[in-house]
Amino acid sequence: MKIICASTSASEQSTWCDMLAAALPQAQVFPWLDDGPACGADIAVVWHPPAALFERERDLRVAFNLGAGVDSLLKLPNLPDDVVIVRLEDAGMAAQMAEYVAHYVVRASRHFDEYEALQKAGRWQPLAEIDRRQWPIGIMGLGVLGTSVAQAMAGLSYPVAGWSRSGRRLEGVQTFAGLESLPDFLARTRVLVNLLPLTPDTEGILCRATLSQLLPESHLINLGRGAHLVEEDLPGLIDGGHMAGAMLDVFRVEPLPAGHPFWTHPRIKITPHVAAITLRRETVEQIGAKILAFMRGETISGVVARERGY
Amino acid sequence: MKIICASTSASEQSTWCDMLAAALPQAQVFPWLDDGPACGADIAVVWHPPAALFERERDLRVAFNLGAGVDSLLKLPNLPDDVVIVRLEDAGMAAQMAEYVAHYVVRASRHFDEYEALQKAGRWQPLAEIDRRQWPIGIMGLGVLGTSVAQAMAGLSYPVAGWSRSGRRLEGVQTFAGLESLPDFLARTRVLVNLLPLTPDTEGILCRATLSQLLPESHLINLGRGAHLVEEDLPGLIDGGHMAGAMLDVFRVEPLPAGHPFWTHPRIKITPHVAAITLRRETVEQIGAKILAFMRGETISGVVARERGY
Repeated sequence: MKIICASTSASEQSTWCDMLAAALPQAQVFPWLDDGPACGADIAVVWHPPAALFERERDLRVAFNLGAGVDSLLKLPNLPDDVVIVRLEDAGMAAQMAEYVAHYVVRASRHFDEYEALQKAGRWQPLAEIDRRQWPIGIMGLGVLGTSVAQAMAGLSYPVAGWSRSGRRLEGVQTFAGLESLPDFLARTRVLVNLLPLTPDTEGILCRATLSQLLPESHLINLGRGAHLVEEDLPGLIDGGHMAGAMLDVFRVEPLPAGHPFWTHPRIKITPHVAAITLRRETVEQIGAKILAFMRGETISGVVARERGY
Repeated sequence: MKIICASTSASEQSTWCDMLAAALPQAQVFPWLDDGPACGADIAVVWHPPAALFERERDLRVAFNLGAGVDSLLKLPNLPDDVVIVRLEDAGMAAQMAEYVAHYVVRASRHFDEYEALQKAGRWQPLAEIDRRQWPIGIMGLGVLGTSVAQAMAGLSYPVAGWSRSGRRLEGVQTFAGLESLPDFLARTRVLVNLLPLTPDTEGILCRATLSQLLPESHLINLGRGAHLVEEDLPGLIDGGHMAGAMLDVFRVEPLPAGHPFWTHPRIKITPHVAAITLRRETVEQIGAKILAFMRGETISGVVARERGY
């Protein structure tokens, strides 16, 4: 069993190699070297690998992606059709996504920013009690991560709906399926959480036309990909009063360029693509177990359907 | 069935009377009047009632408190021994307590304040990934509210322990019982959440001696009563570096007096006793159902054990 591992920096790559070697003592683990020879690997473990990897390593049967989103991997021009692509599932990301969303929603619904301002002003003033019916949450994408967010918010007694291509059902969550149901889903949603995979169908799906269908004083939380959002549409929707704010973790260009209006917009909070960081230990455990199952010829979960794009 | 209802303001009292009358059409509901006659009520529904109520109404069999904490009610000098006291259970408060705590913990553990400062500075800088093992939560008091907080935080994958008099067991939560186990409980806790009832045994339990046993960079969230905390001990523990901060919802004197050091301490957040507001609809539903059960001679939950104090 030969594994080649490629990541975005030499130190990252070295850490992953060491952890994979420790988890799979029966395997030979090779770090990717730009000018190295082919090592005849049958397995790749990758994060934004160079295109040359798939040209040089001709024996690959499977490539495990070190993240949930495989959009950039699938765009590599020379990715062989017969290599199985496996995306990362959960690995500690689901809980992180859930708490990111819970934090934003609760901060707004429970007036925590207003209480902070009242404290600064030295004023003791209870504000209106929470009415969770005023905070319907809508989640786009009901994969492992979207499901986790939906269940966490339903567990906190918020009304939750989910929208997905297939209309996957979840207990306690109102579900909507397919493009024709999108207007109904948007019309009942005040906090829109995007966790869709990025595909040609979903690129730019968050735009003036869709966001303006949300309930008044709506909020956007974008945890999918920057390209889901037509970025220039967002500030106007907020400044015009239809939307109340947004929290964005992903952007068309990352790092977000200096001078981009999101840096300074008073109602847009940004985080630097950290909503759910792959946790190394969980990731290596998951990929290690899947490698063994794959080599035994067993079915594994998380295999990407290329034509679908995720 | 005659119900007398007393609350802290005429408008509050009037609202409760109307809602009780609507929920229990078979009952006569009387508002408390300072100079009114006795109305021969057998049931009282109260929130900080005047002492005179229990002198004038001699036929009372049961008093339902419109909140979870009965400490001030039990201190009334003329409270007859034979009146059953019933505290409010949950009524929407459990979910509110859980989200209050989750908000504070996640904001700290996920660096949201630091990310806000980085955004202001125009800097794109991912911070250390979360390691939930660094955030052991300890909950004092495992009643309905403490249990809700414990389960919510365990659901978000934080290590959770609970401390209570009886050592009540909860799945996924390490439990500690009684005073002798308090040092062990404190020594493994970084975020201490107080949800104890206020009794002579628990007054002042949050003080320099106990708080200094917490893990380094600890946090206090006080959701019980102001008198649980020796208020003058807290700023020094934070300024001295042992504790990292606190969020307080209850105070020895409320409203918190102008000039109190908590108003301006940079690491102490305060909210004006709003962590869990009694939700009227849920409250009236609960008390209405209990009144009917009590009158049928059935056992009801939430009956206060006077010698225990809650």
